Amino acid sequence: MTPAELRAACRAGRWVRPTSGLCDGFVQANLMVVPAEVAFDFLLFCQRNPRPCPVIEVLEAGRVEPASARGADLRTDLPRYRVYRDGRLAEERTEVSGLWRGDLVSFLIGCSFSFEEALQGAGVPLRHLEEGCNVPMYRTAVPASPAGRFRGPLVVSMRPIPAALVPLAVQVTGRYPRVHGAPVHVGAPGSLGIGDLSRPDFGDPVEIREGELPVFWACGVTPQAAALASGIPFCITHAPGHMLVTDLRNADLAG
Amino acid sequence: MTPAELRAACRAGRWVRPTSGLCDGFVQANLMVVPAEVAFDFLLFCQRNPRPCPVIEVLEAGRVEPASARGADLRTDLPRYRVYRDGRLAEERTEVSGLWRGDLVSFLIGCSFSFEEALQGAGVPLRHLEEGCNVPMYRTAVPASPAGRFRGPLVVSMRPIPAALVPLAVQVTGRYPRVHGAPVHVGAPGSLGIGDLSRPDFGDPVEIREGELPVFWACGVTPQAAALASGIPFCITHAPGHMLVTDLRNADLAG
Repeated sequence: MTPAELRAACRAGRWVRPTSGLCDGFVQANLMVVPAEVAFDFLLFCQRNPRPCPVIEVLEAGRVEPASARGADLRTDLPRYRVYRDGRLAEERTEVSGLWRGDLVSFLIGCSFSFEEALQGAGVPLRHLEEGCNVPMYRTAVPASPAGRFRGPLVVSMRPIPAALVPLAVQVTGRYPRVHGAPVHVGAPGSLGIGDLSRPDFGDPVEIREGELPVFWACGVTPQAAALASGIPFCITHAPGHMLVTDLRNADLAG
Repeated sequence: MTPAELRAACRAGRWVRPTSGLCDGFVQANLMVVPAEVAFDFLLFCQRNPRPCPVIEVLEAGRVEPASARGADLRTDLPRYRVYRDGRLAEERTEVSGLWRGDLVSFLIGCSFSFEEALQGAGVPLRHLEEGCNVPMYRTAVPASPAGRFRGPLVVSMRPIPAALVPLAVQVTGRYPRVHGAPVHVGAPGSLGIGDLSRPDFGDPVEIREGELPVFWACGVTPQAAALASGIPFCITHAPGHMLVTDLRNADLAG
């Protein structure tokens, strides 16, 4: 399936599942849509938190066709969306056309799926892909840098990595600063404020085997945690794992 | 002189000259101050033009003390300022306290002085320092990516580099993506739309010797060219070459 074909399938309601493993080689993006009145605050939040929020593209108010996905429509071409109102998850939907307004500013944010291809290419196994589930994600006790009305915890994704491969995993992902880059933390989940790895806040739990360390990367769900923590009146995001697949190549994002 | 001492000298009116070569090892920054109503547009302009406009820090509306220069006051602690009104250079001053308003948002943008230290350390000679003048800067025919009300030409700085040292100069500056990074162009000024290297648009002309190539880096004066080209009603900047000296270390900006 090409990215354009997948987007058309989403638009037609024929694809409503996670996008992990689809359209090999193409960049997938987190979505955050906010009213223009808080767009400066959110762009500043991204600028101050480049690890969890690396900006791939910003669409000006009212625009729905990204330069990185010509012919796409952000209102329909993701498999699943979340709508937050006043700091609460209000609903999950498969399109948001009926909610669209001319003052909405859309942000596409880099996603770790891009560097997972590079990790696999380097021979680093990825447990959530082996188990056929979504990557586990956790709210941490580490605050993201606040900006205007946006504040909240850093969210991280976790991949169990065999101890001998940890340096390789750091080096490979460090080449991709536009998709979260190197890990923010290796081992010791307690020092991030994560109590129980078997109970992620987003995504699915995965097995950690003898001789493996939990390795943590900054995660593009951080804006959703900020929307919850900050009580932002209204925003639309992708549902975790249900990304926009763009026409950019992962190779284009290597630093 | 420490950065704090230099800033105090600026504040007292005792230093009103360019800052090139001062406070070795510390990051110097371009300044752009805009009203809140165009702050999103300008931050997006920076996001879309990371080579000329690498953001070091953004101060929210009304704030004048940067995190990167504790105790400083942006209204007084640069040696010289420019004030633009309606797309024209209105005046040049040594402080802007009397013009300050609570809705002004300040941007600190990386400056090539940071990588010049690394170039010199690698044995690359810098002509404008040898000649004791400001680096020459040119408006190009290459448009920066527009964002909202901001549009204008890419501005570049030029350093003549001996042909054999060009690859080294590219590699050394490429390690500093937060201060313009690698050159945008080597040789052939005509293809950038630069007609006469002896007549820079900002700064001073320098000699280009036999066996040297003109090498061009994206320049932090690009926002000033955009203020002119876009007819922004009001903004305050540093005067070219007269930078804010921060307490950050150049080494902190290496990629």
